[in-house]
Amino acid sequence: MNQGRRYIPRLLTLADLSTHQINRLVAHAYHLKQVSRPWVSPRFSEQPRRPGVSPTLLNKTIALLFSKRSTRTRISAETSAVLLGGRALFLGNDDIQLGVNESLRDTARVISGMCQGIFARVGDHSEIEELALHSIVPVINALSSLWHPTQVLADLLTLHENAFFTSIHPDPMMSPDLVQKLRPLRPLTVAYVGDSANVLHDMLVTYPRLGHQLRIASPENERYRAPKPVWDRVLELGCDKNILWTKDPLEAVKGADLVVTDTWISMGQEAEKEQRIKDFQGYQITEQLCREGGANSDWKFMHCLPRKSHEVDDEVFYGPRSLVFEESDNRKWTIMALFE
Amino acid sequence: MNQGRRYIPRLLTLADLSTHQINRLVAHAYHLKQVSRPWVSPRFSEQPRRPGVSPTLLNKTIALLFSKRSTRTRISAETSAVLLGGRALFLGNDDIQLGVNESLRDTARVISGMCQGIFARVGDHSEIEELALHSIVPVINALSSLWHPTQVLADLLTLHENAFFTSIHPDPMMSPDLVQKLRPLRPLTVAYVGDSANVLHDMLVTYPRLGHQLRIASPENERYRAPKPVWDRVLELGCDKNILWTKDPLEAVKGADLVVTDTWISMGQEAEKEQRIKDFQGYQITEQLCREGGANSDWKFMHCLPRKSHEVDDEVFYGPRSLVFEESDNRKWTIMALFE
Amino acid sequence: MNQGRRYIPRLLTLADLSTHQINRLVAHAYHLKQVSRPWVSPRFSEQPRRPGVSPTLLNKTIALLFSKRSTRTRISAETSAVLLGGRALFLGNDDIQLGVNESLRDTARVISGMCQGIFARVGDHSEIEELALHSIVPVINALSSLWHPTQVLADLLTLHENAFFTSIHPDPMMSPDLVQKLRPLRPLTVAYVGDSANVLHDMLVTYPRLGHQLRIASPENERYRAPKPVWDRVLELGCDKNILWTKDPLEAVKGADLVVTDTWISMGQEAEKEQRIKDFQGYQITEQLCREGGANSDWKFMHCLPRKSHEVDDEVFYGPRSLVFEESDNRKWTIMALFE
Repeated sequence: MNQGRRYIPRLLTLADLSTHQINRLVAHAYHLKQVSRPWVSPRFSEQPRRPGVSPTLLNKTIALLFSKRSTRTRISAETSAVLLGGRALFLGNDDIQLGVNESLRDTARVISGMCQGIFARVGDHSEIEELALHSIVPVINALSSLWHPTQVLADLLTLHENAFFTSIHPDPMMSPDLVQKLRPLRPLTVAYVGDSANVLHDMLVTYPRLGHQLRIASPENERYRAPKPVWDRVLELGCDKNILWTKDPLEAVKGADLVVTDTWISMGQEAEKEQRIKDFQGYQITEQLCREGGANSDWKFMHCLPRKSHEVDDEVFYGPRSLVFEESDNRKWTIMALFE
Repeated sequence: MNQGRRYIPRLLTLADLSTHQINRLVAHAYHLKQVSRPWVSPRFSEQPRRPGVSPTLLNKTIALLFSKRSTRTRISAETSAVLLGGRALFLGNDDIQLGVNESLRDTARVISGMCQGIFARVGDHSEIEELALHSIVPVINALSSLWHPTQVLADLLTLHENAFFTSIHPDPMMSPDLVQKLRPLRPLTVAYVGDSANVLHDMLVTYPRLGHQLRIASPENERYRAPKPVWDRVLELGCDKNILWTKDPLEAVKGADLVVTDTWISMGQEAEKEQRIKDFQGYQITEQLCREGGANSDWKFMHCLPRKSHEVDDEVFYGPRSLVFEESDNRKWTIMALFE
Repeated sequence: MNQGRRYIPRLLTLADLSTHQINRLVAHAYHLKQVSRPWVSPRFSEQPRRPGVSPTLLNKTIALLFSKRSTRTRISAETSAVLLGGRALFLGNDDIQLGVNESLRDTARVISGMCQGIFARVGDHSEIEELALHSIVPVINALSSLWHPTQVLADLLTLHENAFFTSIHPDPMMSPDLVQKLRPLRPLTVAYVGDSANVLHDMLVTYPRLGHQLRIASPENERYRAPKPVWDRVLELGCDKNILWTKDPLEAVKGADLVVTDTWISMGQEAEKEQRIKDFQGYQITEQLCREGGANSDWKFMHCLPRKSHEVDDEVFYGPRSLVFEESDNRKWTIMALFE
């Protein structure tokens, strides 16, 4: 058992993947969504004799180590495992307290000796790095203080599915059958208005590499800007050339095809709530903000949920511009692609 | 995704179903119980090569949204999903707090976008109405402040299985093969002695329509009587003609074939415990009570569990009149019939 | 349903099994581990067309009743059930509180009416005896205040797999094909240095019967010695002849092939922490202790985890003598053998 350390795949941030790998994952998620459609249809009569999805996870278990609550991520993972014929074993904070009763190193080794993958939602990002270091099976980041790669994969799938965003010019890196499955995106202007949190961080290292412009507005304070470990990856990948960062929401939404926001108060920041709500005055996404700022008239809206109304008003959130529930549904298919 | 609202089946109370639909569900549950018997037998050698139950839920996930604890309901649902080849995904109060971190509307939409059904055990009945309104998949009420349809289905199956209650005259509404499977009930006199709670409410809108008499005893106080939304459904279905309501347990059990009770202190009523125990003095089900009240000498006993001894003494609860564990076992088969 | 009580298999301690039954379980676990290897391999291409393990638990559910946390035991059980085609239904202390809302008797009967087995991790051992008394399906002890049979089965499998411990002389009780699968153990000297807790108790009634010597060191105080119900079983099985009990760790490790310890502070003993750490001064397993005490130069180390560093230093725990993660991995295969 004291085998030499061999290479074990992992995914802690999309910065670890090439654009080709990212495109392949999104295309594979789209493929899985198509072939699974009859199985999740409410009309039983449509159900085919044979599953469209091969049961890649048959007899396999993926541990979901969630030290914080994350409903969407959890349900996506559990239902994906079901479709792949396997099982996701949810272990929440009441089931296992990382680093409390035994070292993270021992826990990583023990769980990875019994399961075939670990999908972890941790607090500090260092925890998932420690898990990945000692695990003997693949580790996927389900959400950490710094990164949220699976959300950005779901967002990309959602963009590809909306004709508004797609182009007729195929990506030369992609093989013909993938192009056939999923039309490529035209270069987009993406505005992000809000706190510099994990979803934005994976956008920072991904969207610019895929040819999109990022325009970000956050209050003028160090704590609302990308932390150093994130910005280092941005620079390393040359993504900074396609990023504009301002404190003015109106400037950020200029020419935007897509407007994105996220919670202003992440888990663990409840004490700063009052200060944060004050700092984000004027950051609520509304029709008026985007009109005044000069967003593209067809702009669409995304939010990774759960949503509070101070971040975006009901007119936008429940209106025809909103892609939030498509994003949410797509969490399932992208996580499924990763599990495969 | 902003598709026109199409009809989605739901079950919030048995008042929503016709007597024909109720009979079919009970008969189907009986059928599932018969064909599944070899699979749940402890003797492996009996195990058939092919499953008797077709895996209707293969690749499907049903979300169990339980904002309160409910052991029987939960285990019934999870084991049923296993037998149908699918998966029940339990989400308790620690996993998801309905209406706390995001609106019930958003939660309903998100979960129903990933699962193929929702089985919800909520606090206030308005919560399940809200869930059903925004869900894009079927919603079944696993227990709410007002109704408990799955318990009454299990009780009906238990009655049908006990020869004492059945008749040789078939229900003309039922098809010949269902009659063959499950003998019809003769008209019964059912006494309920206790608080007007969710199990009784579904009995009120169901038993009278199936031809049975209901005799109910509860203390003379508005809070121990059926609330208006329930009684409105009773009147609407014309069930009141077959219901007698008294404060005298002796009068209630007169001529009873079946005596039923439930907890006097439901979850959330712990503060009223002392007052309630005082108000229910003399309501304990005992041999003496039923003898003095003039119950049918062969009377049987039912209780949905968990049981406290002040509601029914050990002699009755663990004695030969008691059908409580058959009722409990039958929760599984009736929930399975619903899932199908 | 009020059927006459028939014999239902159970496993509360290895003292209930013959040495032949114990050897068969260990050999079967080894067999399951071999045939399952391709399925849990990270390399998908190795995956066979047909499962090596027959899905003995297909359509079946085993309830995991865990009134205390036990990560390893739980994950072992859940992943085993997946490999056997069935499902383990985890019910923790938040899901069900044994003996709180209803009697243990009623809970045992209700759960056993819906599931096909119960694997219970209780507090006081009397709770699992009560469960086993009223359950209508097999009950396996996952861990109690007195016994921990599944851990000792995993330890035995680990010993059999380490060539250092095995012999070329087959056990005459074992059939030829089992011998071929699993080489027998030579007589070992096993030292246990620490508190008299549940793992040691199952070692006391098992290792001596299998021909091994046990040398135990615990502080000179009644509470660190085996309680009467355990010692009664030791005497009954004639195991005491092969057991030496001392307060001196140096004496215990003399000639040891294997050195074992466990936590000094079990769950529920947190209040005694300071006193216990004082009483166990000098009991930490180190290279120096074993050298001075005269352990066999090739001695190996075992610990059931989770581990605190006061019990064993890093040099031993993470070093080449340590079999702790093999033990932990083997929990899975032995529990799987039991489920079958």
